[in-house]
Amino acid sequence: MEVLVPFAGREPKTRLADCLRPDERAAFARAMCLDVCAAVADAGHEPTVLSTAPIDVDWPVVVDERPLTEAVNAALVPPTAVVMADLALLTPAAVRRLVGTDGEVVLAPGLGGGTNAAVVRHDEFRFDYHGASVRDHRDRARAVDAALATVDSFRLAVDVDEARDLVEVLLHGTGRAKRWLTDAGFAVETTEGRVVARR
Amino acid sequence: MEVLVPFAGREPKTRLADCLRPDERAAFARAMCLDVCAAVADAGHEPTVLSTAPIDVDWPVVVDERPLTEAVNAALVPPTAVVMADLALLTPAAVRRLVGTDGEVVLAPGLGGGTNAAVVRHDEFRFDYHGASVRDHRDRARAVDAALATVDSFRLAVDVDEARDLVEVLLHGTGRAKRWLTDAGFAVETTEGRVVARR
Repeated sequence: MEVLVPFAGREPKTRLADCLRPDERAAFARAMCLDVCAAVADAGHEPTVLSTAPIDVDWPVVVDERPLTEAVNAALVPPTAVVMADLALLTPAAVRRLVGTDGEVVLAPGLGGGTNAAVVRHDEFRFDYHGASVRDHRDRARAVDAALATVDSFRLAVDVDEARDLVEVLLHGTGRAKRWLTDAGFAVETTEGRVVARR
Repeated sequence: MEVLVPFAGREPKTRLADCLRPDERAAFARAMCLDVCAAVADAGHEPTVLSTAPIDVDWPVVVDERPLTEAVNAALVPPTAVVMADLALLTPAAVRRLVGTDGEVVLAPGLGGGTNAAVVRHDEFRFDYHGASVRDHRDRARAVDAALATVDSFRLAVDVDEARDLVEVLLHGTGRAKRWLTDAGFAVETTEGRVVARR
């Protein structure tokens, strides 16, 4: 199946500004994107990076400068999957679970209401990534009478947006993004509650 | 299978102090515990609340005042599962996936390095819930030559510890904890990044 991997090519990962410099954010975002594409390909599917700016990767790239919602909907030819480029915990097994889930609209919720991954097998469904998008996408699937399914996956739920997410990559990542963080000096630090990544 | 549900009966959920009063935290923690026990029972298993203080619930309760690690290890008679009492997104399906996963030690990672749920089918494995416990538990399973497996579940990964977790209950909860939050005036509020629960 074709898998769109939306990537913010211009100023990626601005919400990591408190722990990474702009050049580091770009390099780390690219490492995550490569991990996602590799997991998709290793699961037997075809990743296409849908980027807002040119990006140098060994995978097909489509450049579309428009906002996420418009760009994804324009590229959507069902059946298609959409997997965000910052899912640094993604594994081929998680991709197989996503694509292997029956349903005309299959949603994988992200932390904080996002829609981190989806499969669309219905001609009338369109994305709207603003706000609590996973709730909106559930409503939109019902509105077009699409059979709705949800994938319950930690690896699909953790997108790396904020400093507190980095520790998940250190603990559960297996690829370039984890190596990038380790090489940049990040390590797991114990706190009173959840552990964090610090350097 | 017997499922231990550890519950901090004395001053539960102190890290929710910035958004809930002490009496609210106690009521909300009890609602979550009841949801967890109901999901376990609906999946065909037997919950036992392992509490640090007496708690009024219609499920078997064992009171053990010791810290979490000591109390769980003392109650552990394999095969046994351990499911934390603050997994407010838990469903019978998630419990079935946990218990249905083969392995002598089955771990479900929580956000920030926790071990939110586990199944132990090995006589020598013992828990240690401090720090990045999921990493330590992986090491401990290997140290006793136990066949290790991991359950990739969003519903098992989200424990409700901090204010930012409440929105997950509003978006994905199905039981008493969600109703409690709604009745207390919490609603989903959109922000620039992940959405949050506010009242």
